[in-house]
Amino acid sequence: MNIDMIRASAERARGHIRRTPLLSSPFLDEIAGRRVFIKPECLQMTGSFKARGAWSALSGMDPEQRARGIMAYSSGNHAQGVAWAATAHGVPSVILMPADAPALKRANTAALGAEVVLYDRATEDREALGTALAEERGLTLVKPYDEPLVIAGQGTTGLEIAEQAAEAGIEAAEVLVCCGGGGLTSGIALACEADAPGLVVRPVEPQGFDDVKRSLEAGAIQRNNRMEGSICDAIVTPQPGDLTFPILSRLCKTGIAVTDEEALMAMAQAFLRLKIVAEPGGAVALAAALYHPEELERDTVITVVSGGNVDPAVFTRALALLPEAS
Amino acid sequence: MNIDMIRASAERARGHIRRTPLLSSPFLDEIAGRRVFIKPECLQMTGSFKARGAWSALSGMDPEQRARGIMAYSSGNHAQGVAWAATAHGVPSVILMPADAPALKRANTAALGAEVVLYDRATEDREALGTALAEERGLTLVKPYDEPLVIAGQGTTGLEIAEQAAEAGIEAAEVLVCCGGGGLTSGIALACEADAPGLVVRPVEPQGFDDVKRSLEAGAIQRNNRMEGSICDAIVTPQPGDLTFPILSRLCKTGIAVTDEEALMAMAQAFLRLKIVAEPGGAVALAAALYHPEELERDTVITVVSGGNVDPAVFTRALALLPEAS
Repeated sequence: MNIDMIRASAERARGHIRRTPLLSSPFLDEIAGRRVFIKPECLQMTGSFKARGAWSALSGMDPEQRARGIMAYSSGNHAQGVAWAATAHGVPSVILMPADAPALKRANTAALGAEVVLYDRATEDREALGTALAEERGLTLVKPYDEPLVIAGQGTTGLEIAEQAAEAGIEAAEVLVCCGGGGLTSGIALACEADAPGLVVRPVEPQGFDDVKRSLEAGAIQRNNRMEGSICDAIVTPQPGDLTFPILSRLCKTGIAVTDEEALMAMAQAFLRLKIVAEPGGAVALAAALYHPEELERDTVITVVSGGNVDPAVFTRALALLPEAS
Repeated sequence: MNIDMIRASAERARGHIRRTPLLSSPFLDEIAGRRVFIKPECLQMTGSFKARGAWSALSGMDPEQRARGIMAYSSGNHAQGVAWAATAHGVPSVILMPADAPALKRANTAALGAEVVLYDRATEDREALGTALAEERGLTLVKPYDEPLVIAGQGTTGLEIAEQAAEAGIEAAEVLVCCGGGGLTSGIALACEADAPGLVVRPVEPQGFDDVKRSLEAGAIQRNNRMEGSICDAIVTPQPGDLTFPILSRLCKTGIAVTDEEALMAMAQAFLRLKIVAEPGGAVALAAALYHPEELERDTVITVVSGGNVDPAVFTRALALLPEAS
């Protein structure tokens, strides 16, 4: 895993993956008490940074292998990214989703061109089902984060951040990244190490699901005690990846954990001041910038809003936190 | 008014005005039955394209004149654009706002650095008050659309559209633009005439407030019968401008008028599929693309989402139009 793989991924992404802008607002600067820049990956293809990793994996794969088809397990952003990338490459994809996944997510994944195969969480073994399907059809599994080509794709976000920081005259800053398995965080950290050594990456997670923060502090992989109970479902993973953790450990500074309420308030501010739609898990880094000033060290922070695939009901709940006059 | 003024404005804007991306979604393509691209000016500084015109006017003005201060009449997006541009140039600005303007808009305009002067709509004459203030303090009035430097600034949106269309391989398309006084529409039309002659500009307005559409059809300036009663308040103006109308008349094809309901549905789709926040007046062009297929001629449309300064309550009303499963 190295910077050349990220640069190669960026080359392959040209014309397919969006270069998202770098946003800011004087109103957010005032809340945070420092300069805040926002990299809105909710504006990426399929509504999250996952499209980068999926594109990277498919475009970097042996074409004959790819032509036989792609498989992924996911009910969320990775599913949509893989379905989109496979269709764009003209190859079939099969996404294994739990039968109780929300109807809209199933419909979206299918509409993006994937064959959605449902399984019963209670009675069926996802891994066994996946392995059998993959063998039968010759499908290649694309893992959500612990896969070098995927990390390289997510790292292209970091190449853009490094470029855009230079354009904005930013030499030193903390880069706050929404962190689940660590694919996006480790990819950005590698890109910044190479292209913008003044940018220090810090992972941000939901409180109670801060496996990466605790793993960094312990110097060894720690697990979350539970997998349910956070509104930030998109970034709740059991533990850091075997590939991502050593990178995070070498390059990242202390993690930050935010509450669900802070994530919702950050979504509301992103609506009001940036005009972007963030999902709860995608808003935790912005929440850290706005509501955890005592944990920040630099006068400039760059935060990634990693996705915007949120139900209207949850979004409405976030907007209700704004004062009446807004 | 010519293309060189727009190019000069773009030069002056470098590093200050955002180059907004060009977005798309297969889901919107499906609704529209054609390819739909979206230029999200809600992501511009201050949340609307008005920042372009304001920056253009201030940066193109004699520096001594500018230093004495700027004035504008507006309770909406132009107010915020002018306040921001003046503060960024380090010069004072005075915005005349009706005393019954929403508290948040007054607060935002003041927070962006303007001195907000309130007047009573019922008993005071805005023009007389403005003229007296301007003379007393040597302030220069920046008009919202009927001003060459402002049209040139809005036209920089068109230069970007021309470039981005070329990058996306689009040679021919209808460009649908949310239209009030015509500053944005005429600026984009001039830019496309020069840089992308295959792009045909069409103004979009709220039904019942389609003065530009009727003026184009009549070949002479027509007025709206009323100024109130549309949710798309940001683009309701009494009539096309004296400077903008000849340009619109020479370069634009037939206008399109959409209902308030269609504008709200377009806002909801922009939330769901693009992850951007559009205000009602800023969503009328997207509404035309999605819900008026019988009035479109090309298989590709580019729509401008011109602003995103919308109250949470109105936004929530738009989201309520989405099916439950969303």
